[in-house]
Amino acid sequence: MKVSIIGVTGYSGIELVRILSRHPNVEICSIHSHSQKTTELSDYLPHLNYLLDLPLEAIDAEKIMDQADLVFLATPSGISKKVAQTFIKADFPIIDLSGDFRLKAADQYEKWYKNSSAPLETLQKAHYGLADFYAKPASKLIANPGCYATGTLLSLAPLIQRRMIEKDSVIVDAKSGLSGAGKKLSSSTHFVTSNENMTLYKMNSHQHIPEIMQQLQKWDEEIPAIQFSTSLIPVTRGIFITTYAKSNEHLTQSQLWQTYQNFYQEKPFVRVQKQGIYPDLRQVIGSNFCDIGVAYNEVTKIITVVTVLDNLVKGAAGQAVQNLNHFAGWSEETGLDLVPIYP
Amino acid sequence: MKVSIIGVTGYSGIELVRILSRHPNVEICSIHSHSQKTTELSDYLPHLNYLLDLPLEAIDAEKIMDQADLVFLATPSGISKKVAQTFIKADFPIIDLSGDFRLKAADQYEKWYKNSSAPLETLQKAHYGLADFYAKPASKLIANPGCYATGTLLSLAPLIQRRMIEKDSVIVDAKSGLSGAGKKLSSSTHFVTSNENMTLYKMNSHQHIPEIMQQLQKWDEEIPAIQFSTSLIPVTRGIFITTYAKSNEHLTQSQLWQTYQNFYQEKPFVRVQKQGIYPDLRQVIGSNFCDIGVAYNEVTKIITVVTVLDNLVKGAAGQAVQNLNHFAGWSEETGLDLVPIYP
Amino acid sequence: MKVSIIGVTGYSGIELVRILSRHPNVEICSIHSHSQKTTELSDYLPHLNYLLDLPLEAIDAEKIMDQADLVFLATPSGISKKVAQTFIKADFPIIDLSGDFRLKAADQYEKWYKNSSAPLETLQKAHYGLADFYAKPASKLIANPGCYATGTLLSLAPLIQRRMIEKDSVIVDAKSGLSGAGKKLSSSTHFVTSNENMTLYKMNSHQHIPEIMQQLQKWDEEIPAIQFSTSLIPVTRGIFITTYAKSNEHLTQSQLWQTYQNFYQEKPFVRVQKQGIYPDLRQVIGSNFCDIGVAYNEVTKIITVVTVLDNLVKGAAGQAVQNLNHFAGWSEETGLDLVPIYP
Amino acid sequence: MKVSIIGVTGYSGIELVRILSRHPNVEICSIHSHSQKTTELSDYLPHLNYLLDLPLEAIDAEKIMDQADLVFLATPSGISKKVAQTFIKADFPIIDLSGDFRLKAADQYEKWYKNSSAPLETLQKAHYGLADFYAKPASKLIANPGCYATGTLLSLAPLIQRRMIEKDSVIVDAKSGLSGAGKKLSSSTHFVTSNENMTLYKMNSHQHIPEIMQQLQKWDEEIPAIQFSTSLIPVTRGIFITTYAKSNEHLTQSQLWQTYQNFYQEKPFVRVQKQGIYPDLRQVIGSNFCDIGVAYNEVTKIITVVTVLDNLVKGAAGQAVQNLNHFAGWSEETGLDLVPIYP
Repeated sequence: MKVSIIGVTGYSGIELVRILSRHPNVEICSIHSHSQKTTELSDYLPHLNYLLDLPLEAIDAEKIMDQADLVFLATPSGISKKVAQTFIKADFPIIDLSGDFRLKAADQYEKWYKNSSAPLETLQKAHYGLADFYAKPASKLIANPGCYATGTLLSLAPLIQRRMIEKDSVIVDAKSGLSGAGKKLSSSTHFVTSNENMTLYKMNSHQHIPEIMQQLQKWDEEIPAIQFSTSLIPVTRGIFITTYAKSNEHLTQSQLWQTYQNFYQEKPFVRVQKQGIYPDLRQVIGSNFCDIGVAYNEVTKIITVVTVLDNLVKGAAGQAVQNLNHFAGWSEETGLDLVPIYP
Repeated sequence: MKVSIIGVTGYSGIELVRILSRHPNVEICSIHSHSQKTTELSDYLPHLNYLLDLPLEAIDAEKIMDQADLVFLATPSGISKKVAQTFIKADFPIIDLSGDFRLKAADQYEKWYKNSSAPLETLQKAHYGLADFYAKPASKLIANPGCYATGTLLSLAPLIQRRMIEKDSVIVDAKSGLSGAGKKLSSSTHFVTSNENMTLYKMNSHQHIPEIMQQLQKWDEEIPAIQFSTSLIPVTRGIFITTYAKSNEHLTQSQLWQTYQNFYQEKPFVRVQKQGIYPDLRQVIGSNFCDIGVAYNEVTKIITVVTVLDNLVKGAAGQAVQNLNHFAGWSEETGLDLVPIYP
Repeated sequence: MKVSIIGVTGYSGIELVRILSRHPNVEICSIHSHSQKTTELSDYLPHLNYLLDLPLEAIDAEKIMDQADLVFLATPSGISKKVAQTFIKADFPIIDLSGDFRLKAADQYEKWYKNSSAPLETLQKAHYGLADFYAKPASKLIANPGCYATGTLLSLAPLIQRRMIEKDSVIVDAKSGLSGAGKKLSSSTHFVTSNENMTLYKMNSHQHIPEIMQQLQKWDEEIPAIQFSTSLIPVTRGIFITTYAKSNEHLTQSQLWQTYQNFYQEKPFVRVQKQGIYPDLRQVIGSNFCDIGVAYNEVTKIITVVTVLDNLVKGAAGQAVQNLNHFAGWSEETGLDLVPIYP
Repeated sequence: MKVSIIGVTGYSGIELVRILSRHPNVEICSIHSHSQKTTELSDYLPHLNYLLDLPLEAIDAEKIMDQADLVFLATPSGISKKVAQTFIKADFPIIDLSGDFRLKAADQYEKWYKNSSAPLETLQKAHYGLADFYAKPASKLIANPGCYATGTLLSLAPLIQRRMIEKDSVIVDAKSGLSGAGKKLSSSTHFVTSNENMTLYKMNSHQHIPEIMQQLQKWDEEIPAIQFSTSLIPVTRGIFITTYAKSNEHLTQSQLWQTYQNFYQEKPFVRVQKQGIYPDLRQVIGSNFCDIGVAYNEVTKIITVVTVLDNLVKGAAGQAVQNLNHFAGWSEETGLDLVPIYP
């Protein structure tokens, strides 16, 4: 299969190149940027010298559709909805990594993204590609989930689907490395600002909240809301999520762990840790794994879920390739046998 | 006043030297280590070359009591209770930075520290020196609070004392830099392990939990328990605490903020941020400040408190000096006019 | 003495506030920025909340000269020469932290800074304030040396002044933390770019080269040139300089060390390490020290000098205050009893 | 081909697993440790959960030789020479990553490693596997070069082989991340010590010096010695080497660059940067590339070579696999198509 990547100079686009260049069934046939003018990718990305022999091209949708079988949009929210138009009109396969097609409700998009949404019809048509939870996409327009959303949903799925918690008790304390903030320059991503620092941002207003709620309510429509916080920690890659919820029944540590173990045993990319072991961030970096550990506190009746993933792989490019595999009907692991880079 | 420091080669001891060497009313008259043999401090601590002209001595309690007016114990939990014995017998003033004298109940110490406690009588006698909440110590044995405990108690004090929250709803997600783990070598503090990493440790079993509960129940005996987690983030200094609790009444963001503002306006070391502003970790490093920001989520009714402090200053040596100031009857700010080092 | 600070929101300006706010003989009477519009400093610098009760003002030279006795210019090269004009005309005391008044030759400034220089007459008048090497400034316009230049000159002074090396053999490999690159946003200072990275920049073209040569040739006019490289390392503060030069005579490790020891024994801010010990970067951070270790390789006849300093203190604000002390006739250590912050 | 790995829990051993588990012609048939007792690798290395389904075994040379076709020794210097004995006696293929078989002269080993050497006969027999410079090993005992040695030799090869420099003018200033110091606990590798720090270690005494000299003198026996320094920088992976040497002839920047470009154009793992471009450390991390940039200073006649590599890949496990490929007669790129992980 031939694919084009639009937005290749961003962090997710770069990671798509790393993964797809070794995917056995895929050939990258063109790469594009909506912001950079150069025609030599290695001027921006010297690590790719001699590895990807393609010029950086302007975006010409017709030409892309002529040459490729599918297009990845690794463009920012707000840009994707514009770039996608021609492809959507032609019913050309798209995997979009932005937030533009994840929400079904236009008003929710407008509220949380503070921007006008894609046409409602397009929103309705898009398939929310939470890749560990479906096998065949319902649409040629696949909306790749957000990085925080992926980790939060994988943390909560067993608790929500198995009806194990008090429905209004969910608190998610999520932390991300700086690559999650993207390549755009700002004083908050300056090394001197973020090194040796930690900061909570977008208090009660992160745009992944509605995406998480939309999916949780699909699983249990009675979940009213969640408390969701996001902080930056001084690492390049990685998301570390600590989720708290109150058990609604008598539970033991062992029962809790067994539930997760059973729930995820068929999912190749979700690794439930041994009982009493909690993952650290490094153990997934560079890979498509989401690692999870769970604990039950008998005094407070609080369940703690510790979840780690690489925001650029499982939280972006890796899951996008998993979605590609679903779309193409290949094993979902194809090309995703990425060993975490450790140390 | 002349003071001796025992445990001077640990991180808290080093920080005591930094602060006390510029305290206008104090002279460091001797420094001691229970583990190091050398007689030249700068062999361990080259940053102190030419700054502290004292030999590193063995611990001789009688000699210390002859020369000094007060002794700081910057020794680890488990060591302090032994080192302190002779001083306690002589009713000599002690400020202890370990956990050995913080808990009133011997069985609690034994449960959480997995070690035999100091004599019950001594535990009962010790003054828990949460320095922003008292003016004159009730005892010559002052137990300096733990770093996490200090931040958690300052986060919760207004909510608990003003009875603003559902009593069983407190969840504390605390993060610490590596200096909080002490100087002892272990694979978890190796640079290669902790750099670019984050890890949750001591799940539901951190020894600061009973110390926090003891104080919270002094403020409101009906608080049953709190959920308390601790994680390591890859910074040298600093504690970042995110605290969640459910409001028990109708509240607004503005009312919440005003409560904190009023509660702390007379406390020189607690800086409530402007409304809608949340502190970042760096802004207190090197100083005795504890900075706090608060938010109210009208959808979930959850109050979020973001609190930062330098674990070696406000969480250890700085608060110990604040306790010294209380003990001596000086202004609590004496010698603590430390400007945060930024960047 | 009353002083004003122009350029207070940059890293050197911030550090001037930290140091001067505890200087016993100085009062900061006004603070100014050439770029920021706000009137509340703590909006930019929340670490200074409650510590500096002054508004951020526009630059009004006449008003400053009315109120203050001296002005610090912590403005960038290219800006200082403009801001300074009115003060220079009035012969008002200035300590300038930029590169605008360090070089005596206008053409050298234009070549290395790629900008028109200050008037030649002003360049000639300015006093190059290498603070450890003079006692009383020859002018009211003091040009504070560059951070790399300070470390390189202190590394080489004994070798050059004592005529110990082959004159064309000096190679300086200098490394700096990111605060040395200033607050300006650029892709090279983004956390994701600079974290876990190292890069050599301004190959053979760093603007501190002519400043170093100017001073070295004052000490020995036969020094023809030096090889000088600068790299960025992923730390916030600090400069680490490794200097190599070939001995011109038979030497021993012990003689070399003794030469440095003697040369610097009267200089309070230069700490020659014990023989066989080399300083690490952390041991000076937050202080005005420059720490030096030296080694002689009998096989290659190469002398290695390892030098560390805090670029924002000894390399900027601290040395500026040392220059102030010289200017005012105070002990050069006044207000500079800064204990390094460790760890 | 079936291979066994001894020393699999060290950083180089872990990296061998990452690379070999995707090598198309290789099967890892057993893994061994000389220090760890557990039988579950993922207890030490949770990132390998579900990825390597092999128990951790004790070292049984006979059993290994029965099952495998070649053994990798990723054991430390001093251990390898003992572990290797039985394999050497049986003339079984070995690729050793330690320093034990790199030097031809026993007295040199003893001087620099401060330990007794392997038998002289074995030293003589071993093949120094500088993988970019040979095609077929002369022996079944391959000594994989040191990480610093690899980078230094690749930096200098064109200058030495083409006789471009003054023979006594080489100065190498090498910097390494902490993984280069190995997994052993020491105060110098504690996060709190090494974070935000830089330190020069083993002044004039690094054990890679004789290995570099041995190879340089093979290329030009008149090279008398080099000045070689090693420092630690606060990154996990990577070596950054700045090499200086004086040109012995009239040269231009363009000629210098062209020499390197020509010299390395057939070497797939050495990427000479575009003229005027110098590599940064990150651009090779995770890959087997060694990237090089060169500059000529017309004023000082000094050539500067900037070289980066991943110490665990090109400096250890990657080069070891390149040596395996040579040994087996495969293309040297087999299984080494590792895209650098960026960012």
